[in-house]
Amino acid sequence: MTPPPYDVQSPSVTSVITLLTDYGLEDGFVASCHGVIISIAPQTRIIDVCHLVPAGDIRRGAAILAQTLPYLPAGVHIGAVDTASASARRSIAVEAGNRVFVGPDNGLLSWAVMAAGGARAAYEISNTELFLKPVSPTFPGRDIYAPVAARLCMGRKPADLGPEIPLDRLLLLPPPTARIGEGAAEGEVLSLDRYGNVQLSVTADDLATIGVHVGDTLAVSMGRRQITMPFRDTFAAVPPGNLVAFTDSAGKVAFAVNSGDAAQRLGLPPGAHVRLARGVDI
Amino acid sequence: MTPPPYDVQSPSVTSVITLLTDYGLEDGFVASCHGVIISIAPQTRIIDVCHLVPAGDIRRGAAILAQTLPYLPAGVHIGAVDTASASARRSIAVEAGNRVFVGPDNGLLSWAVMAAGGARAAYEISNTELFLKPVSPTFPGRDIYAPVAARLCMGRKPADLGPEIPLDRLLLLPPPTARIGEGAAEGEVLSLDRYGNVQLSVTADDLATIGVHVGDTLAVSMGRRQITMPFRDTFAAVPPGNLVAFTDSAGKVAFAVNSGDAAQRLGLPPGAHVRLARGVDI
Amino acid sequence: MTPPPYDVQSPSVTSVITLLTDYGLEDGFVASCHGVIISIAPQTRIIDVCHLVPAGDIRRGAAILAQTLPYLPAGVHIGAVDTASASARRSIAVEAGNRVFVGPDNGLLSWAVMAAGGARAAYEISNTELFLKPVSPTFPGRDIYAPVAARLCMGRKPADLGPEIPLDRLLLLPPPTARIGEGAAEGEVLSLDRYGNVQLSVTADDLATIGVHVGDTLAVSMGRRQITMPFRDTFAAVPPGNLVAFTDSAGKVAFAVNSGDAAQRLGLPPGAHVRLARGVDI
Repeated sequence: MTPPPYDVQSPSVTSVITLLTDYGLEDGFVASCHGVIISIAPQTRIIDVCHLVPAGDIRRGAAILAQTLPYLPAGVHIGAVDTASASARRSIAVEAGNRVFVGPDNGLLSWAVMAAGGARAAYEISNTELFLKPVSPTFPGRDIYAPVAARLCMGRKPADLGPEIPLDRLLLLPPPTARIGEGAAEGEVLSLDRYGNVQLSVTADDLATIGVHVGDTLAVSMGRRQITMPFRDTFAAVPPGNLVAFTDSAGKVAFAVNSGDAAQRLGLPPGAHVRLARGVDI
Repeated sequence: MTPPPYDVQSPSVTSVITLLTDYGLEDGFVASCHGVIISIAPQTRIIDVCHLVPAGDIRRGAAILAQTLPYLPAGVHIGAVDTASASARRSIAVEAGNRVFVGPDNGLLSWAVMAAGGARAAYEISNTELFLKPVSPTFPGRDIYAPVAARLCMGRKPADLGPEIPLDRLLLLPPPTARIGEGAAEGEVLSLDRYGNVQLSVTADDLATIGVHVGDTLAVSMGRRQITMPFRDTFAAVPPGNLVAFTDSAGKVAFAVNSGDAAQRLGLPPGAHVRLARGVDI
Repeated sequence: MTPPPYDVQSPSVTSVITLLTDYGLEDGFVASCHGVIISIAPQTRIIDVCHLVPAGDIRRGAAILAQTLPYLPAGVHIGAVDTASASARRSIAVEAGNRVFVGPDNGLLSWAVMAAGGARAAYEISNTELFLKPVSPTFPGRDIYAPVAARLCMGRKPADLGPEIPLDRLLLLPPPTARIGEGAAEGEVLSLDRYGNVQLSVTADDLATIGVHVGDTLAVSMGRRQITMPFRDTFAAVPPGNLVAFTDSAGKVAFAVNSGDAAQRLGLPPGAHVRLARGVDI
């Protein structure tokens, strides 16, 4: 996963913390994290990336963080999904590009780290002096990640957080499958958005590699089903109610129904396997 | 639609950007916009007006923006609803009062522009130097509106954005119907809020014009149905479970059930026609 | 309800306003409050505690505010739940610790005031010079609480808001029941969170008092049902699918199902009576 070639500069942001969690918005969980950050680092700017990651859905959280990252100013990026389960293992801080990622060592951060250019150094967050006290076993976001991120903004170095971790010991989330074969690109459904668009792990560049370009027709195989649809610049290029493939705002191939809901129409859940090839023009 | 006579001063806000979208909160879309703004204009204050406008519902978005505007400090006001569909046509910046509105030329901004005193000048946003690159055809909020708004906060003038547009070429959303006839005011359901209150396009001033005042009884015709209800200061003025009409916080006449849900009770969808007259006191 | 012994300092936050409401996120209501605050006090930092308190659910709002408070920097804390109903009575400002609470005199603020160390002084907010004009009878959050809180941040004193109220005249919400008897602790379900965890009014300290410690087995009586479950540090300490009791991040005893939904499994609504005793180890 390479970062898109968007050029966003960060002229003079002194300290930014971004937050991605599965805490939801029906409680005070997110506010607790904001409060801790502001109490420790009052000038820090906080950006809420997303708090409605489905509870425990590490892959969805990883995808949102990695796809949003190119548009976020450099800063400390907290991820907190499935943190209270055994998956969370230990808390880590990973340096990549001009960013520091803070969260559980469960793979959540790994796609964003790759999008930022790959890990340069990683640390186990174990210096309890930097934590809230006591630490609740079920809320590291508030008691560990938030105060640690705030203290990084106040001048602490990642190396102060705890012992360095060899980079090959970090848990990496398997990247979404995307294979380019003989005239076909295979991948999986990455996510469904609120408009019912179906985002694939296949990119526009993958399609170009197999010779499919905007204006062509796509032959799509999903399990036993086979359909064709036009590949266009945007879903608005087809009549309302029609299926279309387009390159979405994250550079991925996505299926849409103009003024409709492709997820519902196609019944494709996240993880479903999809095969794309050049189809006969309609 | 005239601005309510609330008196909110803005003593020393240097730069404020407000955001109203139909992006939802389940993705990183809103955060992308925040990130772009902060990357370009780090000191800008961002106010999220609403991101749960139903996807593509331009009228609902226009109503929320116009009704919230009198309480927002002067600044750059981004609206992004239905931006990827053909309706969006071109991107515009409209100057009105001490505000600049940025968004699609699909009518979304028009009610807020009126609430701000009417358009003084409008520009087609076409200066691609000010955009992110590349521009995704489906995400002008992130790639066009956000960077343009941020650059306006950093000193760019609306005239730098592109060619001026004659004001009579802007697409205006038809205002909600509200007619005052012989002893009756007619209008439509503007919106239903989370409490189940039914907001009409008829204002308290309209009722005064036909001689209906707080304390009177309203005769309400909805299609073939006819009911009466008291017109009071607030829904708390009637016993729990009772229907009541009152002037809501946006100056509109609204139906409510004290401690209940008027939308459910009456089954009135947005756009439904309603006729109000003075009723026989109960 | 004593404040948890977490140690969060607030080194140099000049002015913070926090907002807890039942306004929802589908309208511009929250943004109106932000806009009013920023218009009057442009440097103020705003923390959104929660806006999805179920409409009119004063106890739920009170619980969220009190449990989040220890993590919020000192400031002005606005609560606005059920404000348009008769319950709201009058608007009050209550000083407690280094905080000021602003909202309706309907009990909403009372648990947070206790968590802040108890009321030191209270005032009826009646100085209309400090309000927006006109005041909508259904939106004191925007027209009264927001401008008053902003003016407190700009140097106004609580005593400027209106006449002092004897502390014994404030409406107090009955604290959630929690009784410690002979070898048993009784309480009620306080809330269900998005993960399906069932939070009780019983604290870990209450369990210690009756001799139940982490590692023991709990005998739980709910109406006629009796079950046992392990009492552990965290829900991750039991196999997926298993019931467990643990001390949650607010210091309360909670039931969970590891990787599951205890609220659904147990069918316990808020307010349900629960009795806990030491069980025979499994």
